Amino acid sequence: MFQILGSQLLPISFVVFCLCQTIILAYIQINSEKKVQQLYKFLIETNDSYQRFVPKQFLELFSKKDITSLEIGDKFSRNMMILSADIRNFTAMSEDMSGIQVFKFLNGYFEKVAPVIQKHGGIIEKYLGDGIIAFFPYNCESALKCALEMQENMITLRQEFKEKGLPELKIGIGIHYGNVLVGTAGDASRMSEVAISKELDVLTHVESATKRYNKAIIVTKEAVGAAAWEAKTNNHKFEFYGKKIPEAIGHELYYIYNDVVGKDL
Amino acid sequence: MFQILGSQLLPISFVVFCLCQTIILAYIQINSEKKVQQLYKFLIETNDSYQRFVPKQFLELFSKKDITSLEIGDKFSRNMMILSADIRNFTAMSEDMSGIQVFKFLNGYFEKVAPVIQKHGGIIEKYLGDGIIAFFPYNCESALKCALEMQENMITLRQEFKEKGLPELKIGIGIHYGNVLVGTAGDASRMSEVAISKELDVLTHVESATKRYNKAIIVTKEAVGAAAWEAKTNNHKFEFYGKKIPEAIGHELYYIYNDVVGKDL
Repeated sequence: MFQILGSQLLPISFVVFCLCQTIILAYIQINSEKKVQQLYKFLIETNDSYQRFVPKQFLELFSKKDITSLEIGDKFSRNMMILSADIRNFTAMSEDMSGIQVFKFLNGYFEKVAPVIQKHGGIIEKYLGDGIIAFFPYNCESALKCALEMQENMITLRQEFKEKGLPELKIGIGIHYGNVLVGTAGDASRMSEVAISKELDVLTHVESATKRYNKAIIVTKEAVGAAAWEAKTNNHKFEFYGKKIPEAIGHELYYIYNDVVGKDL
Repeated sequence: MFQILGSQLLPISFVVFCLCQTIILAYIQINSEKKVQQLYKFLIETNDSYQRFVPKQFLELFSKKDITSLEIGDKFSRNMMILSADIRNFTAMSEDMSGIQVFKFLNGYFEKVAPVIQKHGGIIEKYLGDGIIAFFPYNCESALKCALEMQENMITLRQEFKEKGLPELKIGIGIHYGNVLVGTAGDASRMSEVAISKELDVLTHVESATKRYNKAIIVTKEAVGAAAWEAKTNNHKFEFYGKKIPEAIGHELYYIYNDVVGKDL
């Protein structure tokens, strides 16, 4: 009797042991799975948050699959359209506004123009205070169309801001075409995309000319030429007008407009 | 006999089933653990890579624990020392250099000055081509000491660059003190830290004055005042010299120097 009970007890206790082991292992795995999912979610969110600071399109231009392969000293140079947009008298205006108002104003504006730049294949290289520098590495005419659509959006936004009691919103846009050298610079702890080109100085000059000549959009001869060549290649005509600014010194400048935007700022 | 065998077969097969289950579960867990470790490593690397673009100190200033809690429109304003450093004639110089040389030059320079800024409690706000904008949110005199140490480092680096056949390296540093409003701006897909302040225009003016007056470091009256007040509070004396620039118009400017750096650029 004892022997029979003994020989039965062994397998039974073993079965119970195996069953418990299985249940415990399954429990551990479910728990670790949960933790992993939480960690994964947090890391993905962190990555997404960072990604907004370093646009994916930049990695594409650097021919990098992901940011971990981007190293200090990586670079590319390219002929492309470069755009600079600036809010008229923003720094002076901001002096009379609260911090909340300043960023309400700025972000209300950026939210309206950033998607337009993206839509036309542009990459926002930098926000500089109220200024935006954008590169159009893939096509030329789109930069001009982008500028016109940005100004079109300003018409409704100007009205919206007026109704909210915010100061008058006017932007000037300058566009130039030329070779830009873009690379990564910094040290191990602080890295940045950096653009080096004398063409960027020309762009600054063109953008400030919108103030001098009171025009909404001013483009250089090089920018008009590049866009015209592209339009000719694609066998279509510009859907906007352009006129030379005869008094411009140093650089041959043109202002462009359409029926909605108008010539003047 | 058959009955005994039957009653034995059931627990044996069950034991085998349980054993297999345990082994399989353990195997799955080991494997998923490996995958998780790989994924974790990749995400951590990605985060580290991104983090170089958005310094942690900025998150601290925004009083944010991690970047996921940083939202568009977050802001702070603060009286602080602001520093701008620029390489003399860099854009012109870069025209005669290859892309590789440009970034060798730039990164050789940044690697020498970025740690100095960090050491003195400064945060590099932006790299603008060859320019650096840095904020010193925690103390004032450190900004002046930082500028002197940056110029000290340039003495050896100038020699190193010369030996490598790179163009002559000279930098001008401007320092000002004032209120700066810093916030996050952009849209959902592209976000940036943005600084708004008329004091930044003053800073640009001061930095370009180093070229006009051929001085290594120029600081405004406000910057000297803030640093002097801090030194007085801490009951110690400046370890450098400062002299007023009598011909400066608009802003009261001073150049600072020590026995190593010298007055002139």
